[in-house]
Amino acid sequence: MSLITVGTMAFDAIETPFGKTDKIVGGSAVYVAYAASNFVKPVQQISIIGYDFPKEEMDDLRSRGVHLDGVELVPDKKSFFWSGRYHADMNSRDTLVTDLNVLADFDPKVPDSYQGAEFLMLGNLHPLTQLNVIQELKQRPKLIAMDTMNFWMESAMKDLKIVLRYVDMLIINDAEARQLTGLFSLVKAAKAILEMGPKYLIIKKGEHGALLFHNENVFYAPALPLEDVFDPTGAGDTFAGGFMGYIAKSGDISFENMKRGIIVGSAMASFCVEKFGASRLKEVTKAEIDNRIRQFKELVSFEIELV
Amino acid sequence: MSLITVGTMAFDAIETPFGKTDKIVGGSAVYVAYAASNFVKPVQQISIIGYDFPKEEMDDLRSRGVHLDGVELVPDKKSFFWSGRYHADMNSRDTLVTDLNVLADFDPKVPDSYQGAEFLMLGNLHPLTQLNVIQELKQRPKLIAMDTMNFWMESAMKDLKIVLRYVDMLIINDAEARQLTGLFSLVKAAKAILEMGPKYLIIKKGEHGALLFHNENVFYAPALPLEDVFDPTGAGDTFAGGFMGYIAKSGDISFENMKRGIIVGSAMASFCVEKFGASRLKEVTKAEIDNRIRQFKELVSFEIELV
Repeated sequence: MSLITVGTMAFDAIETPFGKTDKIVGGSAVYVAYAASNFVKPVQQISIIGYDFPKEEMDDLRSRGVHLDGVELVPDKKSFFWSGRYHADMNSRDTLVTDLNVLADFDPKVPDSYQGAEFLMLGNLHPLTQLNVIQELKQRPKLIAMDTMNFWMESAMKDLKIVLRYVDMLIINDAEARQLTGLFSLVKAAKAILEMGPKYLIIKKGEHGALLFHNENVFYAPALPLEDVFDPTGAGDTFAGGFMGYIAKSGDISFENMKRGIIVGSAMASFCVEKFGASRLKEVTKAEIDNRIRQFKELVSFEIELV
Repeated sequence: MSLITVGTMAFDAIETPFGKTDKIVGGSAVYVAYAASNFVKPVQQISIIGYDFPKEEMDDLRSRGVHLDGVELVPDKKSFFWSGRYHADMNSRDTLVTDLNVLADFDPKVPDSYQGAEFLMLGNLHPLTQLNVIQELKQRPKLIAMDTMNFWMESAMKDLKIVLRYVDMLIINDAEARQLTGLFSLVKAAKAILEMGPKYLIIKKGEHGALLFHNENVFYAPALPLEDVFDPTGAGDTFAGGFMGYIAKSGDISFENMKRGIIVGSAMASFCVEKFGASRLKEVTKAEIDNRIRQFKELVSFEIELV
């Protein structure tokens, strides 16, 4: 099975209460690829980079089975750059700089070599850009998942509502679910979103875990209680990458298997936040992943007879 | 097995986005008793009431196996009264009125008929009042759990630190755990609290569930995702009552059984918030409780092979 992932490959400069970085490699498609490539090969990347994107990073991705035919290099422009500062609670942040650079002209094309992919993860981009990718595919994937954000709800809600009709799963956070529907109750918001098109909805709640909704079914995955969250940047994309990587590996899109996928995604996200950027994801081993999944299992396991 | 519960029996007037009540019966010991009496008899109440506390409420409690020998009636004063207004998010509220009335003179005595109780739940009161109850007991219970709040951390931290050395378990919310320790990370806060005396710590996170800490062990219980939280008043006390009632019924204070107790407490709290005050708790049936525990089990159950 193969997984196409569409999103940014970029530079971030991050400040947290624990320290700050200069420009480091980031971007949604980078996090998705590092997480997913632990489970499935190939991961087929669609993105756009400038002349400044490091060749070593591309080599590193390639060595993990990530295909880069769909990554457009613009020789006379810089890569997308984002800079942000996290508040003490690590749940909120201020954007300091957003330099679109190459991203302003991003018009993703699906290379022939990617056609026939069974899984598609659409990172947070303009809804019409996401839609274009879907329409470029000659064969509909088994599962199309997408991310989005408040910015598109404010500036392109009509387009967002259109692309939602074409995807199987939406992966957003709790604030985004509330904003998309105008409903405070996440249960009510979930019902409303499942009427908009997606058959599956994942609501990410950061340190409070994630919820999976499908028809009348709900699954709740905790986040691992951590001593420190060092840098939350990319945790949501890493979650999505771990989830889609696991699902693509198995090819099984049953609700039961999606539960497993969410645990795997949560495990990968718990590594991501341990160091700045994607650095922890690059070094994590299969044994560490297995061990962390075991921790998740222990964290929520209980046996009870009825009272 | 028997459970002593110490706390307020009072009147509340509550405003939520869904409506408002006149004075209705509330108080921590009332919620604990209604929740715990589903599992264990007798529940032995220690509290103080004024002339205005309804006789029918006392009869209702008695009919559920709640002993009231330890409830002092002050014939010329009113019962404790609290009034509050919840914000739209239901996680925060403003206190509008606090009339201590009889509570100003509360000096709880343990009746002879309560001596020998195996379980003790100390509701949120002045730490020295909580300590007095412990010291009145001729035989140390198998498990002493206590609640507290930010008010005592600000006004009686020294006394609070003393009583913490005498209890087995502290049950508080996330904001209180952070305030008690000055640590933002709940994992670090938990470690610090387990150094203060209690061997077990439950951190309640409202709609985000609850965490149980003991030595190096952590258990995470979700809250049930609900369409509406109608009135959160008493949910924390109901959780504690369900937990202690279940533990007292079984007499088993192993970590494994405490996990079950937390699920039961969470189930009882999920009923509490469905209606104003304790009204939903008064009508809930054993079949409904069993059904809800089943829902919790389904909510977090997953089977996974390692990756």
